[in-house]
Amino acid sequence: MAERLVVIGGDAGGMTAAAMARRLRPDLDVVALERGAHMSYSACGIPYLVAGDIDDLDDLVVVTPDRFRAEYNIDARTRHEVTALDLDARQVEVRDHEHDRTYKLGFDTLLVATGARPVRPDLPGIDGDTIHGVQTLDDAERLLADADRRPPRAVTVVGGGYIGLEMAEAFVRRGAAVTLVEAAPEVMRTLDTDMAAMVHKAMEAFGIDVRTGVAVEGFEPGRVLTAAGPVEADLVVLGLGVQPNSELAGDAGVALGARGAISVNRRQQTSADGVWAAGDCCDSFHLVSQRNVHVALGTVANKQGRVAGINIGGGYATFPGVVGTAVTKVCSTEVARTGLTETEAARDGFAYEAVTIESTTRAGYFPGTKPITVKVVAERDTGRLLGAQIVGEEGAAKRIDVFATALTARLTVFDMISLDLSYAPPFSSVWDPVLVAARKAVEAVERGR
Amino acid sequence: MAERLVVIGGDAGGMTAAAMARRLRPDLDVVALERGAHMSYSACGIPYLVAGDIDDLDDLVVVTPDRFRAEYNIDARTRHEVTALDLDARQVEVRDHEHDRTYKLGFDTLLVATGARPVRPDLPGIDGDTIHGVQTLDDAERLLADADRRPPRAVTVVGGGYIGLEMAEAFVRRGAAVTLVEAAPEVMRTLDTDMAAMVHKAMEAFGIDVRTGVAVEGFEPGRVLTAAGPVEADLVVLGLGVQPNSELAGDAGVALGARGAISVNRRQQTSADGVWAAGDCCDSFHLVSQRNVHVALGTVANKQGRVAGINIGGGYATFPGVVGTAVTKVCSTEVARTGLTETEAARDGFAYEAVTIESTTRAGYFPGTKPITVKVVAERDTGRLLGAQIVGEEGAAKRIDVFATALTARLTVFDMISLDLSYAPPFSSVWDPVLVAARKAVEAVERGR
Repeated sequence: MAERLVVIGGDAGGMTAAAMARRLRPDLDVVALERGAHMSYSACGIPYLVAGDIDDLDDLVVVTPDRFRAEYNIDARTRHEVTALDLDARQVEVRDHEHDRTYKLGFDTLLVATGARPVRPDLPGIDGDTIHGVQTLDDAERLLADADRRPPRAVTVVGGGYIGLEMAEAFVRRGAAVTLVEAAPEVMRTLDTDMAAMVHKAMEAFGIDVRTGVAVEGFEPGRVLTAAGPVEADLVVLGLGVQPNSELAGDAGVALGARGAISVNRRQQTSADGVWAAGDCCDSFHLVSQRNVHVALGTVANKQGRVAGINIGGGYATFPGVVGTAVTKVCSTEVARTGLTETEAARDGFAYEAVTIESTTRAGYFPGTKPITVKVVAERDTGRLLGAQIVGEEGAAKRIDVFATALTARLTVFDMISLDLSYAPPFSSVWDPVLVAARKAVEAVERGR
Repeated sequence: MAERLVVIGGDAGGMTAAAMARRLRPDLDVVALERGAHMSYSACGIPYLVAGDIDDLDDLVVVTPDRFRAEYNIDARTRHEVTALDLDARQVEVRDHEHDRTYKLGFDTLLVATGARPVRPDLPGIDGDTIHGVQTLDDAERLLADADRRPPRAVTVVGGGYIGLEMAEAFVRRGAAVTLVEAAPEVMRTLDTDMAAMVHKAMEAFGIDVRTGVAVEGFEPGRVLTAAGPVEADLVVLGLGVQPNSELAGDAGVALGARGAISVNRRQQTSADGVWAAGDCCDSFHLVSQRNVHVALGTVANKQGRVAGINIGGGYATFPGVVGTAVTKVCSTEVARTGLTETEAARDGFAYEAVTIESTTRAGYFPGTKPITVKVVAERDTGRLLGAQIVGEEGAAKRIDVFATALTARLTVFDMISLDLSYAPPFSSVWDPVLVAARKAVEAVERGR
């Protein structure tokens, strides 16, 4: 009998691994089990689907289950939920929701790619049917069905992180009155407060009612209860972050790591023999803080999936880690970060200098030039780059990739001022904003010595 | 008497150095001599001035001579041309074109920043008054005056490099019929032929009559004579590259290096004691080929000027070198390169793999997504990144900066596939095109082992 790989979870981490393992090991029997109705899709596209930028939910699907079966020779099963995992017996228990039956399936190798789910705080009314998390395409389907059936006049978004901000904008563009409630003193806790304040302003300018420092206390039909009084809400979006779906693996005895995510090594191996993990359910190593962290992003899931798949297929690949890069667009404001913020650098015990500069995305005199603000955090004494944040308009955010690359290469801001970055008037000032920020950081590091 | 720094040449290299030295040494007497009428301007903006994107030539001026005098306390003299340099007597001979007189000026420290000039091949009729080089703001003034006085119906651009392409587009946008004549088999010799062919196509689609493999043999009023017959031309733009203005220094005994440019070390010191150089007149070290090269770009001039100024001011700074980055926009096509092309890698004796991928600038399903082609050259065996080229539409070119940073850090394509680059649907696919290209390069390197 052929050796069998069972993949639990049919999105980025799972299916990238399944496809890669299949390619390297044509002899392998590959079964992919997905509890939802969709596989291999771009969850990051959901806000743009809600906003109307994208017409059809199917546009977000990268590969359909049919295609996985026909072209990849992967036994792709949707609406099949793994309900238990027995490492000793080397089998999973599967609930087939389509045919309402349960069966057991043996495996030689297992890949856990169970993803993450939106945090649902234990508050009165949290299970109301107008309260939506936005993580899977099934979530998006439910949310859109709800919004189409009863177009919401008032939408409240709880939580001012990436998904919260994107969904707030999406509902404004659908014509709703949108309130965003955030318990912290400022939105975007992944940025320093000074940078996040610029995003806050941009959201207000777009017509979003942003209420920071306001804790949610519960939900009632038609309203969200907060410490500062009730907020009207025909529809609620939860944007409080996600937690890893690691219970199945954890209960089976697989070791868990950062924030309860499945602990993996550089090859995406878990603590259990022949059991691998990839994507939002497992942890990552942060190359700057040198801690294990839980980063639930499609980029990481795809990379981890590729690495797991190559290793399962008998090859050798490693995922050295993340540097904490993230980007989004809120209204016309582009927001990006990588590495450590000032707050994070302090928490992790770095002595640092932080500088902020303002520049333009194109030459100052060039038509269509837009503002860009760059904040850089560098280690005191060594000048090692620790992180960067960007807030700006069109053409600003993708510059974060230079910092992300520099972080991976452990460059100092002294190295960075000589970077041979591209310049022509439609693209940049002669000193790219990245270089302007690096120069100011060099001066701060020199002064601090 | 105060120690005196004399700066020869008042654009990027010279004035960046002058301003920096002034800041660090308030006691210094700083005299800047510029033979033209303008100082400290963006020559790279000239094509956009010609095209009409920018209204006023003064918009390209960064700092006026008046401001250098008033705010920087720099004795900035325009229309003052240095005609001789005596290193033993430590003085320069200056021709004051304004007052038609010649004087001698002593110096303790000298910075040579004499720039470069367009190559003018020794062909019959080359000195005709409708034949324009485009290097200085004075050149631009003459060209615009000519074009305004007798709006050209037919313009011929000789040479298909950056400036040639940009000027060709500019004149199409002014309503002229534009022919571009290039002696080489393809335009953009700084790209590999396969990538350059895409640029060639875009230019033709924009209405430029591109004639490659055609050598220019001479100029007559109203036409350019070529090996393939005459080409109509009310106005001719030379885009044959530039050569360093290094004769003054060379004649005085300063050592010259790559392509006749002034040879400098990492601190921008020339071979002569107390004589520094910066910008288009001097050479640079290429960090990938490890050769000295002549790169005449504003980015390099500014960086070298900063380094020279800090060192002249008593500080310590180095310019480690370039990686050969350049970018331009031709019509709606963005073009960028860094490191070595396949052709250059072969010439420099590298064993390499070259791969090309096609992708999109945003998520494939996102509105406004545009095509991008990325070519990567990596060293065989080690996988070290050697270079990259990008041709694409809006949002494509600036990705070259990730490769430029990776080259500086000597990353391999194995390192690059794990880069934590930013992703959100308005900015990228989940695998950024840079990563897609790196992955394909990894596969090629692995196959080649």
